[in-house]
Amino acid sequence: MGDVKVEKLLNNYKTLDEFKRFKEYGNQELSMLEDLQSNIVENNSESPFYGIYYGGSLIARMSLYKVDKKYDQYFDPQHDYLELWKLEVLPHYQGKGHGKKLVDFAKSFQLPIKTNPRINSHGFWEKMDFQKANYNMERDFGQNPLIWLPEGIMERTE
Amino acid sequence: MGDVKVEKLLNNYKTLDEFKRFKEYGNQELSMLEDLQSNIVENNSESPFYGIYYGGSLIARMSLYKVDKKYDQYFDPQHDYLELWKLEVLPHYQGKGHGKKLVDFAKSFQLPIKTNPRINSHGFWEKMDFQKANYNMERDFGQNPLIWLPEGIMERTE
Repeated sequence: MGDVKVEKLLNNYKTLDEFKRFKEYGNQELSMLEDLQSNIVENNSESPFYGIYYGGSLIARMSLYKVDKKYDQYFDPQHDYLELWKLEVLPHYQGKGHGKKLVDFAKSFQLPIKTNPRINSHGFWEKMDFQKANYNMERDFGQNPLIWLPEGIMERTE
Repeated sequence: MGDVKVEKLLNNYKTLDEFKRFKEYGNQELSMLEDLQSNIVENNSESPFYGIYYGGSLIARMSLYKVDKKYDQYFDPQHDYLELWKLEVLPHYQGKGHGKKLVDFAKSFQLPIKTNPRINSHGFWEKMDFQKANYNMERDFGQNPLIWLPEGIMERTE
């Protein structure tokens, strides 16, 4: 455990092939693959994913996207924030702190974070000090937003 | 099967209690419960949910929310559309057409529809004539949007 590190993942065929082992493989990954195939993006360009390798294989990943403060509807004062999604550790490697390692990495930017957790993952997010955002239907439909606040940032209340 | 019908669900303690049997119970339902408890909404006010009852119990449901055309980022021409989410049939009642009944009900408004399907439900949505939206990271992060187009509406391409 001690020597694993979080790495920025590159957009290449190897990464995209490893992504197939994750449950949350969907339109985003397919779109990345098509962009690569049609040379819309360069091979080995940076992807929005970060991951942990173990024995040469990708065993955990998350996608992190920085949202400009002008689109922020969650925080006070309005602030750039990170949208964290597709956090997933492969089954065999769960319970070993890899998920926490990725979340700690995200927190290290000292920006507020928003995520939309999968079913049955609330216990994990609570341990990570994430809290439920007040539900606002117009903003949050289809989501159960959780947020993490660095010092000096509060949740927005309108 | 012939006699089941889709009903608008009311926001009351009975409905909210029945919601607990669905996997996708989250912030939205908790927020509805709190609003009811603190009299922010009236008992039996309309909820954004539709459902199917069988033998007096709620066995299937979905949430439907009409998004104003000024917020539309998916369709051409820009159009009011329905955001469909939390479509779920209780396990014992699956495979009997209840999911299709709810989706057909949503289509009956003749508005374009957008949904963000759960993992492993793509086969169902394909049968319902939904298609993948072109993935746009800034718009779609954390989602795998699928859309349904009524006659005369196309997907937006920028």
